[in-house]
Amino acid sequence: MKRIVLMLLCCAMAVGGYAQQQLGQRSRVKSPVVNADGSVTFNVYAPSAQQVSVSGDFEEIRGRRLEMTKQENGVWTVTTQPLRPELYSYSISVDGVRFIDPANSYVNRDISTLSNIFIVTRSSDDKGHLYQVNNVPHGTLARVWYDSPTLGTQRRMTVYLPPAYDGNRRFPVLYLLHGHGGDETSWGDLGRTSQIMDNLIAEGKAQPMIVVMPNGNPTCDAAPGWWHEGMYTPDGNAFRRRGAKASMEESFMDIVNFVDSHYRTIKKRSARAVSGLSMGGGHTFGIARLYPDIFDYYGLQSAAAQVRLDDAQFDTQMSRLFASKPRLFWIAIGKDDFLMRMNNELRDYLDEKGYPYEYYENDGGHIWRNWRIYLTLFAQKIFTVN
Amino acid sequence: MKRIVLMLLCCAMAVGGYAQQQLGQRSRVKSPVVNADGSVTFNVYAPSAQQVSVSGDFEEIRGRRLEMTKQENGVWTVTTQPLRPELYSYSISVDGVRFIDPANSYVNRDISTLSNIFIVTRSSDDKGHLYQVNNVPHGTLARVWYDSPTLGTQRRMTVYLPPAYDGNRRFPVLYLLHGHGGDETSWGDLGRTSQIMDNLIAEGKAQPMIVVMPNGNPTCDAAPGWWHEGMYTPDGNAFRRRGAKASMEESFMDIVNFVDSHYRTIKKRSARAVSGLSMGGGHTFGIARLYPDIFDYYGLQSAAAQVRLDDAQFDTQMSRLFASKPRLFWIAIGKDDFLMRMNNELRDYLDEKGYPYEYYENDGGHIWRNWRIYLTLFAQKIFTVN
Repeated sequence: MKRIVLMLLCCAMAVGGYAQQQLGQRSRVKSPVVNADGSVTFNVYAPSAQQVSVSGDFEEIRGRRLEMTKQENGVWTVTTQPLRPELYSYSISVDGVRFIDPANSYVNRDISTLSNIFIVTRSSDDKGHLYQVNNVPHGTLARVWYDSPTLGTQRRMTVYLPPAYDGNRRFPVLYLLHGHGGDETSWGDLGRTSQIMDNLIAEGKAQPMIVVMPNGNPTCDAAPGWWHEGMYTPDGNAFRRRGAKASMEESFMDIVNFVDSHYRTIKKRSARAVSGLSMGGGHTFGIARLYPDIFDYYGLQSAAAQVRLDDAQFDTQMSRLFASKPRLFWIAIGKDDFLMRMNNELRDYLDEKGYPYEYYENDGGHIWRNWRIYLTLFAQKIFTVN
Repeated sequence: MKRIVLMLLCCAMAVGGYAQQQLGQRSRVKSPVVNADGSVTFNVYAPSAQQVSVSGDFEEIRGRRLEMTKQENGVWTVTTQPLRPELYSYSISVDGVRFIDPANSYVNRDISTLSNIFIVTRSSDDKGHLYQVNNVPHGTLARVWYDSPTLGTQRRMTVYLPPAYDGNRRFPVLYLLHGHGGDETSWGDLGRTSQIMDNLIAEGKAQPMIVVMPNGNPTCDAAPGWWHEGMYTPDGNAFRRRGAKASMEESFMDIVNFVDSHYRTIKKRSARAVSGLSMGGGHTFGIARLYPDIFDYYGLQSAAAQVRLDDAQFDTQMSRLFASKPRLFWIAIGKDDFLMRMNNELRDYLDEKGYPYEYYENDGGHIWRNWRIYLTLFAQKIFTVN
């Protein structure tokens, strides 16, 4: 029997070379090449181009743009200085027009923009290592449709189940909310949620938990291309002009109820956390005020979280929230974030009222690099006591 | 409370315009534009380019390539003749270099090549409609890790659960296998499995079923970038030089056992089907011969399925397989497929032995366009009796 199987394999190999008639050809060059010292070489075959450059979120590189040099074989090339361990995004400019690197099939979509990605890692305790897929037990990632009675639609969410989710054990749940222009794919793709959680859990740094990443746009059912409005050009504002039957915050318990009835969750306050970035930080703040008894951990990341002293209910809600003694009210923001002033006003308010919170400030602005850091930190702070 | 939520929303909207500091800018043009008559307009902003064209799997277009015309604003444009309803793939060539369309964020990866996609549909009973996301109940799609005792690794598969998978009902299972160079993402992405299944089930044309799409490369744990070997350039041959502990066929029952123990399946032969394309068609053929009592429906799509008269066990296995009276042994292939001769030899053998099978032949070659058709047809033929 083994011989037959081997023969079949050989047969498959023989036809394999042309097994799928592809539209494209394999790229002539390899790009990017991450070198041993952390420097990265980009190569683009563009023999007729006049100017080719690479732009990325390289904090180490002035202007974050590198001019490439044309070689005799028509390949443009450039090598960076050694880069710090990180997940980097970049694109190629050919005679002033932005393209993704034809040799790199790893891409992320941010609203309507595709960018290539690569990872630099040099040790097992750096960020690159944390963001890559390592040889550890892996959780599963599912795109799940649920009914939202409040919004009157079927909607899509992403659910991460930890590797130990196999049997009868129950788990706490982190609800993780995206920002403006994002959708239920953002945290998994741009945020590297499954990689970060797999690695933190494997290292014993975070409790095994379910992570629920819903769609925070109440007038959208799902990410672009994944619902019946078709393959439109993603545009953060396209669905804001429509009237929603309810806001994200008002419809949020539909999500919690679905998760509690469909997954092996621990159904109590101490086993529920909610955190979001930017608009999702605003949602987190609103959810904290609407449902103070449901969640015990709040994480506001670069949050659009405004103190509404002009609203009579704001003080009452805040008083009720902190009277409930949440285990963590965490505010994280980068020094260059354009929402710093709003976050300072929120902290002034909390200080004045004597409401306890934790604050984390780091470099950088309103960018995914920071949100991956905030997820990493927040995930280690929650569900640490039962 | 409503007022606060509204105010928060307004606040989020005010910051929304620059809520995520992106690397890219929104494209200056819209592309592609699918016009009402089914023609499609492509637009590429490339003011310095000398020659821009679009290439795709347009059977209607000679050479499948269209030269674009430069307008005064630097935008190159071309409009096709009306295209038949279909999911199309294409790319852009700028001065001889292949790029994906910078204005279109919808892409599929086939091995290492990214191509843009769009859909043409004109009525609710055409292929475009079948491949798009419609306003019907949706199943969920999960990337699941399972243990393979035979291969000694944790491995990744894609699992589609039908919309009705919610409660205590049990479902039949279709195992759907990819070809050479593919992986556990191929059938979901290139094959549009969840869209096809959602739509067929909603129309009552297929039974609600679980669809399991494993990784058919026994020396790979998961798709490129999703296991610890890193973000290498995908290459169908890269892992073939390694020794596998067992073949796909030999390790296949690990998958069936995992699925039967983790999902609400109907655990009997009449509720199991297996089908695959190309190399996966070869796997299907091997699985049919190894485990004749496990599956009742076999679908060989453009299959690398060789008659091995030089192997003494082949006749015995085939005799045992057809003695077990499978409900369906289905062979599908396109007229231009390079595996037509191999499939003809298989049919000659079956005819000579008097083994019953169904045969479907259509236009075209060894391409995803055909495999989507074959999935659509096969899914309607299985689990029709209990």
